Amino acid sequence: MEKKLISNVDKEMKIALEKYKEPENIKRVLSGMRPTGKLHLGNYFGALKAWINLQDRAESFFFIADWHAITTSYNDLSNLSENTVEMMADWLSAGIDPEKSTLFVQSWVKEHAELYLLLGMIVPVRWLERNPTYKEMMENLKDRELATYGFLGYPVLQAADIIIYRADVVPVGIDQIPHLELTREIARRFNNFFGNIFPEPRPFLSEAPKLPGLDGRKMSKSYGNCIYLSDSAEDVEKKVRGMVTDPARVRKTDPGNPEICPVFAYHNIFTDREMIKEIEEGCRKGKIGCVQCKKILAGNLNEFLSPIREKRQEYLLNRKKMIEIFEEGSRKAKKIAAETMEMVRDSMNFLKPEDL
Amino acid sequence: MEKKLISNVDKEMKIALEKYKEPENIKRVLSGMRPTGKLHLGNYFGALKAWINLQDRAESFFFIADWHAITTSYNDLSNLSENTVEMMADWLSAGIDPEKSTLFVQSWVKEHAELYLLLGMIVPVRWLERNPTYKEMMENLKDRELATYGFLGYPVLQAADIIIYRADVVPVGIDQIPHLELTREIARRFNNFFGNIFPEPRPFLSEAPKLPGLDGRKMSKSYGNCIYLSDSAEDVEKKVRGMVTDPARVRKTDPGNPEICPVFAYHNIFTDREMIKEIEEGCRKGKIGCVQCKKILAGNLNEFLSPIREKRQEYLLNRKKMIEIFEEGSRKAKKIAAETMEMVRDSMNFLKPEDL
Ligand code: SF4
Ligand code: SF4
Repeated sequence: MEKKLISNVDKEMKIALEKYKEPENIKRVLSGMRPTGKLHLGNYFGALKAWINLQDRAESFFFIADWHAITTSYNDLSNLSENTVEMMADWLSAGIDPEKSTLFVQSWVKEHAELYLLLGMIVPVRWLERNPTYKEMMENLKDRELATYGFLGYPVLQAADIIIYRADVVPVGIDQIPHLELTREIARRFNNFFGNIFPEPRPFLSEAPKLPGLDGRKMSKSYGNCIYLSDSAEDVEKKVRGMVTDPARVRKTDPGNPEICPVFAYHNIFTDREMIKEIEEGCRKGKIGCVQCKKILAGNLNEFLSPIREKRQEYLLNRKKMIEIFEEGSRKAKKIAAETMEMVRDSMNFLKPEDL
Repeated sequence: MEKKLISNVDKEMKIALEKYKEPENIKRVLSGMRPTGKLHLGNYFGALKAWINLQDRAESFFFIADWHAITTSYNDLSNLSENTVEMMADWLSAGIDPEKSTLFVQSWVKEHAELYLLLGMIVPVRWLERNPTYKEMMENLKDRELATYGFLGYPVLQAADIIIYRADVVPVGIDQIPHLELTREIARRFNNFFGNIFPEPRPFLSEAPKLPGLDGRKMSKSYGNCIYLSDSAEDVEKKVRGMVTDPARVRKTDPGNPEICPVFAYHNIFTDREMIKEIEEGCRKGKIGCVQCKKILAGNLNEFLSPIREKRQEYLLNRKKMIEIFEEGSRKAKKIAAETMEMVRDSMNFLKPEDL
């Protein structure tokens, strides 16, 4: 089942990659993440790594989508504030560089809310009802209380988030392509009614390396199979020790198949070529034990994570400074967002206050 | 049909008046109007007059709902800016007093948009789908492009408009009672989740005198049967000359029935008691002609309208000053709205910027 799912995604990915060739001249990039908890390696390789690359190539805006965080969990926001801080620490320690990128918090740039309101006025409800996630929710009686107006409209808020910066490129995962298509449709519709203000943003699809969770399934907080950027060295060792391996191997001398072993998938990312080769052979020939194989992995993982972990600690010890970085970014973002809103209000013919 | 409609409304009115007795201790009142064109006498007696009375009794906030104006006419906003200015002139000249009331423009107080976004997150879509106006639209294929996300959510925006000032009383027409009930439900739901921030606003139902349009139907811009606050003296005379009367009267000597005559309904409002008596008798006995009866009315109407008309001209000649009045009011409104939003953000546990 999981296998099939992945190959379906691969197929869609191919189609999408063909339709949206990698943009050549990227001017302005924008992306965001919902602060729902500490980041794990899946988040790192699925999104952060692409951002880290992009910030060298284009003017980059990355934001913590705290308004979006409440679309699905409004009944428990006790961690919202803390999760926002943790996300700041995760980003900065992982290599998102405030000298290169504009980092901000969505709810600190109120212009997003105004554009969300205005865009909502021109988006037919049936465009939003088509959203499969929403449809599912409406069919599931238990979830109907969660099918809120805000949830129905989160693609409108997403559209506002993106086009308010007139971003031309948005790094997305394959599953977000339909949302980006909707953003493009909304931008087009606005331009049709009120004049050409918004570029239609293109997706930037990066093929992330496959990094399964500890149990071989997709790495996901809800499965409890994650390695977090913030895990201690001991945690990492312990988690790796407990990883699923090729179930055919009981004794060290049993030959194994690295291709179906999650531990080996990790080696492919964190271990150098020569060692990978050695492990692969050793596993196939029953010459290396899983315990040893995992020890090597844990070492390499900790080598990768320890500088992140250290920086993370530093940032968290100096929260004020960290929050200031996002304040500074929010001010920069606000400047551009406010410019866009001037244009939007003019084009829609709102009366202007002289100096409010 | 029209008759029946009115008597149904009367019945509903009675029920509503019983449920919501006139509030005794009014602290803060809020109401708004969509700037869709010049105001007519129906608007004056249906809403403005109650506002003028309320501004002496309570802290009053009145706003021009320019964001709401686009819920139904986003495809033609060419008059939005001009309509906003005209509404300012109508209000000020009719007696809404900026020394007593806080007058502002909705889109100049961005906090409304933020609260709209946040409230939307907790309002189940099915609460909004129940709205009869929305239901009708969805059933009418022709209107389905108008059934936008913004239209579906205008009761959420209305709720935000009201509760952001923690207003305890809202002057409304009988037809808006269901919307106010929804506002109360939304306030309650927010309070349940996040703590007691919003009072549940009560309606203030004023029984407006019945003022029909020139043709005897309800006065409405779309029927072309209005007398506007801005009509010239000549316009008023001409319009009154063309008014529908008791159709049984062909000659002056035909006895008439004032009860079914729109002209007489006007006399009831604009003419002094003695003269009303004289006209009533004269009409019933065929002793006064409709031409003369109308002449008297036109004179009285112009007496009522001419000071409004003159002030209106003055305001329009000094737009800057007028806009400044609404800027000043918007600043005052913003102060309170911002205080509320502080509380809202704290209660929802958003991370705060230190000094943005
Ligand atoms: S030796 Fe390594 S690669 Fe082979 S099954 Fe064990 S853990 Fe997996
Ligand atoms: S005399 Fe006056 S009240 Fe009587 S029908 Fe004519 S207009 Fe109406």
